[in-house]
Amino acid sequence: MRTFPEKLHEAQAACNSLLCVGLDPDPQKIPQHLLARFDLPQAVYHFNAAIIEATQAFASTFKPNLAFFEALGVQGWTVFKKTLETIPPDKLVIADAKRGDIGNTARKYAEAFFVQFDCDAITVAPYMGADSVLPFLGFAGKAAFVLGLTSNPGADDFEKQTIVSTNEEPKPLYLAVAQKVSQWQTEMPGTAGLVVGATQADAMRAIREETPSLPFLIPGVGTQGGDLHLAVSEGAANGGPVLINASRGILYATTGRDFAEAAALQAQKLAQQMPYQA
Amino acid sequence: MRTFPEKLHEAQAACNSLLCVGLDPDPQKIPQHLLARFDLPQAVYHFNAAIIEATQAFASTFKPNLAFFEALGVQGWTVFKKTLETIPPDKLVIADAKRGDIGNTARKYAEAFFVQFDCDAITVAPYMGADSVLPFLGFAGKAAFVLGLTSNPGADDFEKQTIVSTNEEPKPLYLAVAQKVSQWQTEMPGTAGLVVGATQADAMRAIREETPSLPFLIPGVGTQGGDLHLAVSEGAANGGPVLINASRGILYATTGRDFAEAAALQAQKLAQQMPYQA
Repeated sequence: MRTFPEKLHEAQAACNSLLCVGLDPDPQKIPQHLLARFDLPQAVYHFNAAIIEATQAFASTFKPNLAFFEALGVQGWTVFKKTLETIPPDKLVIADAKRGDIGNTARKYAEAFFVQFDCDAITVAPYMGADSVLPFLGFAGKAAFVLGLTSNPGADDFEKQTIVSTNEEPKPLYLAVAQKVSQWQTEMPGTAGLVVGATQADAMRAIREETPSLPFLIPGVGTQGGDLHLAVSEGAANGGPVLINASRGILYATTGRDFAEAAALQAQKLAQQMPYQA
Repeated sequence: MRTFPEKLHEAQAACNSLLCVGLDPDPQKIPQHLLARFDLPQAVYHFNAAIIEATQAFASTFKPNLAFFEALGVQGWTVFKKTLETIPPDKLVIADAKRGDIGNTARKYAEAFFVQFDCDAITVAPYMGADSVLPFLGFAGKAAFVLGLTSNPGADDFEKQTIVSTNEEPKPLYLAVAQKVSQWQTEMPGTAGLVVGATQADAMRAIREETPSLPFLIPGVGTQGGDLHLAVSEGAANGGPVLINASRGILYATTGRDFAEAAALQAQKLAQQMPYQA
């Protein structure tokens, strides 16, 4: 079975793009004509399906954001499953779920996303340490993107705080996380990645130096203001694998009947700015 | 509208117990006769309903662990909703979901659990900082229990690391989190709590000193080996509100046809060891 990085390489080479399309279907922003024609869960499903259809030529990966499905209530998970069914098999799926809990619980989350929904990857929160992350790293061909340094202002509160421990240089928490993730995946290479926000390009170089081969999932280039070119050059330094995520800038390029065409145009424009280099 | 601590006080006084029953329905451990009679999602529902019915006299609060529902796939959320419907209205519900993401996404998770499923509280991961937690603190009568110091071995990896910042004493990360949570809830008092593992009783006193009035959700007294009496005495010092969670020790007291009676007996025994003191 191919590893996650091998699958990523193939999928990115096939579309010649580093783009990952984030699926954050917000009822306040999806086109009115869909909301008028369908009930909300159905409207969200049709919105997602149209976005996936329109943008798949320009992206290797789709990243559904679970919060936007869960906010639909019980039907949200049906919409999630039906949405996944519209993603072509040669594309990758990252469940953006930010899960993390003690070992026996983390195993259940892994089972949910890797087995029940057959996603290729999931995002995972590192706060609770090794036994909360390791259960996600035991699936052949799958990967967990662990939060390293995120793109939001709150990254200052804890992620960027300096930690000190005996016999080690003081370092920011995000770097300690990156080092641990790098160690944790050595028993099952290729099953871990890191989330590194595009708004944090100055720190990305240091993280890449510590973790030369971990795939980076890089959000924050659109609405959040991160610099795309810097993110690519720092994140992909020395051939490190990267996925650049864009969500709102693609999904809500317009809210008219031509939303899918407008999304395709945005995705194409972004893809051209980040060609894949093997 | 009553605040979450007021609701907690009433519910705990009514059953004279600090007990919270964790609902972690594991298909490998639920009684065979249920699995023989129903399909898996239905078996899990009937198991939950029987446990809730049997233990409600001894607990103020139920804490469904979302991972065990999500691992059932699409039907898991229906089981979650149906399970919630069997919990009496005078009991509290904590969605143990450990969510956390950037602001617009955190708001959607809050909407899912506080509005769609009308839970009283949710567990939240602090790694991404203020804007990932604040959206959970804006709901009257609801609360977010933020992970402080957890009960698992992985707490050593990051939570217990010492952080240093200018003009402040070095402190463990969990204490920095506790201080921030305490600050964040001042605009909406009563909407925040902390998760503090019972296996960490030595550190609990320091956290309680920093956050005298925050409710503590204390897991880890059963299978994980935490000391119940120490957890109560340190956690509830000077009248601080506490919920002591037990899951596996109650749920799987036996796996025979008498599982509900056995669970009730365990819950009663635990409740008697932790009477509520107003």
